[in-house]
Amino acid sequence: MYQKLLRQHETVKNCLCVGLDPDLDKLPDWYPKSVDGVLHFLLDVIEATQDKCLAYKPNISFFEGLGLDGLHLLKALCNEIPDHIPIIMDAKRGDIGNTSRMQAAFIFNTFKADAITVNPLMGYDSVEPFLEHKNKWVFILGLTSNSGSNDIERQRLQSEKSVYEHIITLGNTWSEKHPNLGFVIGATHDELPTIRKQTHLPFLIPGVGAQGGTYSHALAGADKNGICLINVGRQLLYGGEGRITPALLQERICTILGQ
Amino acid sequence: MYQKLLRQHETVKNCLCVGLDPDLDKLPDWYPKSVDGVLHFLLDVIEATQDKCLAYKPNISFFEGLGLDGLHLLKALCNEIPDHIPIIMDAKRGDIGNTSRMQAAFIFNTFKADAITVNPLMGYDSVEPFLEHKNKWVFILGLTSNSGSNDIERQRLQSEKSVYEHIITLGNTWSEKHPNLGFVIGATHDELPTIRKQTHLPFLIPGVGAQGGTYSHALAGADKNGICLINVGRQLLYGGEGRITPALLQERICTILGQ
Repeated sequence: MYQKLLRQHETVKNCLCVGLDPDLDKLPDWYPKSVDGVLHFLLDVIEATQDKCLAYKPNISFFEGLGLDGLHLLKALCNEIPDHIPIIMDAKRGDIGNTSRMQAAFIFNTFKADAITVNPLMGYDSVEPFLEHKNKWVFILGLTSNSGSNDIERQRLQSEKSVYEHIITLGNTWSEKHPNLGFVIGATHDELPTIRKQTHLPFLIPGVGAQGGTYSHALAGADKNGICLINVGRQLLYGGEGRITPALLQERICTILGQ
Repeated sequence: MYQKLLRQHETVKNCLCVGLDPDLDKLPDWYPKSVDGVLHFLLDVIEATQDKCLAYKPNISFFEGLGLDGLHLLKALCNEIPDHIPIIMDAKRGDIGNTSRMQAAFIFNTFKADAITVNPLMGYDSVEPFLEHKNKWVFILGLTSNSGSNDIERQRLQSEKSVYEHIITLGNTWSEKHPNLGFVIGATHDELPTIRKQTHLPFLIPGVGAQGGTYSHALAGADKNGICLINVGRQLLYGGEGRITPALLQERICTILGQ
């Protein structure tokens, strides 16, 4: 996965991860509001962005929201994404060990994903079955981009660290055995540069666009020298009513990248 | 959901929740090791337990482990579970608000589940979309049954509470607006009676059987006067090679209940 990412970064020279989150309510009018319409829409998005982005991040829940047909659509879509572009499946999975093993099989085998997001609340034995897939990448939730991150993630432990900083420390330790680990860190927070100093592991950064973060802020805070994945979903996919074209998405990408 | 639970409790007079976790490697030899074989097996389990248990808890990941066919199987299975028996979908979902909404639609609409398990790490706005389904029940992870619960859940906050106790407090607060909330508390821990004193909300208790907890210990610690859901999966489903019969499962249930 990391080699794939490096090669694609050499080609596109940006850290843009395109969030593939189909929402029937936001689909441009040009596309039928159906599972077929969504597939057509997303294939147009991939056609228009495949030489302009570092990776794709489908959030499996948006496909689940379309029922079982939506998951068949996701499988078909993943088959259409060119092999050289990494697929990060945003699934926020994690359970006791034998269950996490099933989840890993589902995400990595059925959809041929290169990476997955995992919720680390249940601890090491809930994350390790994903990490054991050595050719895949596992991004555990660190500090998420939503307001609810105050409820638990930002609570301060007796060690003076917040829960999310404790997760960064855990992840650093876990990565000694399993280097295929990274963190999800929301772009909406000011702590991004501080968190960057606490780990050398890669970041997947959601929260740009509709959630209020900016690409340039995320990039400045993440790692100018290394590679991070800055996810943009709604700001890139929605907002027009016509068919998605390469020119339209090129314009939106330039706006996002600040070029 | 709660009325359904009360009525079924009057009938069966126990707190047994049957965990439906299909595992091809453990399937009795009598059943073909295929998706059809799994369906046959689980239908036999339901036939044999429907007048002896309080609820069913399929863990969706074990069905996902069978690929997309496994999810079609889960849908067919949920349709076969008698309407008067609650279905708790063990899914450990949770994401930012608009995504959690999709997850809730998937679990509650596609599978007609009466309840779901949710991972609360991302905080209130990640849990609320599930709670907004007023006729459904939402069990958030409190203290899970695995060893990894030491890594984050048991870490102590500056308030002297552990993270899981903080989650209990949060859940108590959230339940003022949304009373359809409960907690997942593992049967493998000694703290069960202590946690019981910290909240009046219902418990879903995994960890009995293969993970080392016992039904009687869980029941004693949970709430003798109220209702809790004590989940037994592997200990009930697996261990023989022949066809599942009502007599066989009656015997296993008596062993589990200590009768």
